[in-house]
Amino acid sequence: MNALLIVAHGSRRVESNDEIKALTGKVAASAGDQFDLVDCAYLELAEPLIPAGIEALAAKGATSILVVPYFLARGTHVASDIPEEVEKGKVACPDVDISITNYFGASPSVPELLVDLAVASR
Amino acid sequence: MNALLIVAHGSRRVESNDEIKALTGKVAASAGDQFDLVDCAYLELAEPLIPAGIEALAAKGATSILVVPYFLARGTHVASDIPEEVEKGKVACPDVDISITNYFGASPSVPELLVDLAVASR
Repeated sequence: MNALLIVAHGSRRVESNDEIKALTGKVAASAGDQFDLVDCAYLELAEPLIPAGIEALAAKGATSILVVPYFLARGTHVASDIPEEVEKGKVACPDVDISITNYFGASPSVPELLVDLAVASR
Repeated sequence: MNALLIVAHGSRRVESNDEIKALTGKVAASAGDQFDLVDCAYLELAEPLIPAGIEALAAKGATSILVVPYFLARGTHVASDIPEEVEKGKVACPDVDISITNYFGASPSVPELLVDLAVASR
């Protein structure tokens, strides 16, 4: 089973974490049958943390997990912290094929989306 | 002249601020003739700050400025800090029509973009 794990920073504000959960539901709907499981995890400040998120997907039968960093910039979190946490998940779930995609802000569609957002609010 | 001002958080990392500048260039290209001017500003830690960004666009002849918060969550920055800084720009440029769009993470295309990003990296 193919799984997608959206990783957000995590916040002390419950609303921000809930926003990620709502987004995760929308991603699951948008993914259709391209992913069997879609869930979210947080780098810090909220649960589940990344290793727990990976273990939960593995427990549900995921054989392959794509971790998508929901971050805008290639900062330390994207470059080092998320890979380190994902590595813990790999150690805990050695039979699962786990990889990390490019971070969200690097998506080539971002500029177009910003223009759309601006035009829609005129 | 219609202007678009992308507002990012700003970082101590020069690379992150430069990433926003590169994105701004791509947005300008993607905007075509929908916006006459496209520039970026930062909430903190980098320059120009929001009021200076607004004043620079006004000095270039902008009569209308749409401020697009390049943020993922509706946190304090989006809810309070950016509006406060934009207000300073309005005071400095009373003849310019200045408004703030919804923040980037609220764009309805975000879930689809996340799926595309994941599928593309398979």
